[in-house]
Amino acid sequence: MSELIEPIARLQQQFARLPGIGSKSALRLAYYIASIPVEQAEELAAAIDQGRKSIRYCSICGNYTVQDPCPICRDDSRKNGILCVVKDPRDVAAIERMRDFRGLYHVLHGTISPMNGIGPDDIRIKELLSRIESEHISEVILATNPDIEGEATANYIARMLKPTGVLVTRIAHGLPVGGNLEYTDEVTLAKALEGRRIM
Amino acid sequence: MSELIEPIARLQQQFARLPGIGSKSALRLAYYIASIPVEQAEELAAAIDQGRKSIRYCSICGNYTVQDPCPICRDDSRKNGILCVVKDPRDVAAIERMRDFRGLYHVLHGTISPMNGIGPDDIRIKELLSRIESEHISEVILATNPDIEGEATANYIARMLKPTGVLVTRIAHGLPVGGNLEYTDEVTLAKALEGRRIM
Repeated sequence: MSELIEPIARLQQQFARLPGIGSKSALRLAYYIASIPVEQAEELAAAIDQGRKSIRYCSICGNYTVQDPCPICRDDSRKNGILCVVKDPRDVAAIERMRDFRGLYHVLHGTISPMNGIGPDDIRIKELLSRIESEHISEVILATNPDIEGEATANYIARMLKPTGVLVTRIAHGLPVGGNLEYTDEVTLAKALEGRRIM
Repeated sequence: MSELIEPIARLQQQFARLPGIGSKSALRLAYYIASIPVEQAEELAAAIDQGRKSIRYCSICGNYTVQDPCPICRDDSRKNGILCVVKDPRDVAAIERMRDFRGLYHVLHGTISPMNGIGPDDIRIKELLSRIESEHISEVILATNPDIEGEATANYIARMLKPTGVLVTRIAHGLPVGGNLEYTDEVTLAKALEGRRIM
């Protein structure tokens, strides 16, 4: 017989699957769930289950959204010809937090990483090329992370876009090299966007 | 407009209510939920919602259980006259992990803490006294934490039990003072139990 009752063991196992939560923390969370009112557990479960089910990808930019297309892609005032390319939906939220950028986004859902077997066809580069053909895009800002994979991806896309004649810029290295776009403060992000250079 | 879509904002808010999870970690978990398969989100939600609903208190010992009375209270081989008094259900699991103790438990659900307005009537001391009257208890081991509140609670219970004539022992200070029973290793716990002294 395990020293844990089944629902607590199952909670521990489920929590331990979450990123950054080890087995001791998972057990602590499991006991916490046992201690809260049923209604509070229901709310958390609904946020997870219904929340996950309500989230889809925007068919245009690839960002998370409830309605497709997403509110940004539906907003005509943002169709200013500038397209910001990022790795993750989290990066869209980081740039939106700064409230400075008024163009559109394109979410790659990953970066080229030969070490992990991720090639150009595994991320949304094809979709980016067809957007540049069909939408009135005058500038593509490559805002992938300033790490090895992010740089490689930016370089690859810049090369691919050369024939289209569209202006391709790279977010400036105001970000610490090896850092993470998502956790960059608004001021640094704004500076990085300002100092973008032609590739 | 917030830079987060509603289900992600709600997930962040819900995760931030969990102990030890700050708002940045909560946001990371929210995006993680958005990224996992629907089935995996369902499993986690079910563990929380159905799990919480299946957990109740054992009407005898106060431990968490699915069936009432709990498996330990139903186990006749454990009715050896020794009753181990602990603060939390987590402490029962910690002692069970050691696999050395073969008696019964009594969970207080807290410790006396005048600073936090918790008096003897707010924890399960009355229930302990009536168990000692109705069950064949020869020894009560007080296994509250070796901190100020745990000591105060142990002393209070020892005083209350004096008239009953039952042997009252205190778990030995093999545990580091100011420490936490739940995170103590099995060997130290076993030593502490072995070295218990009459109060």
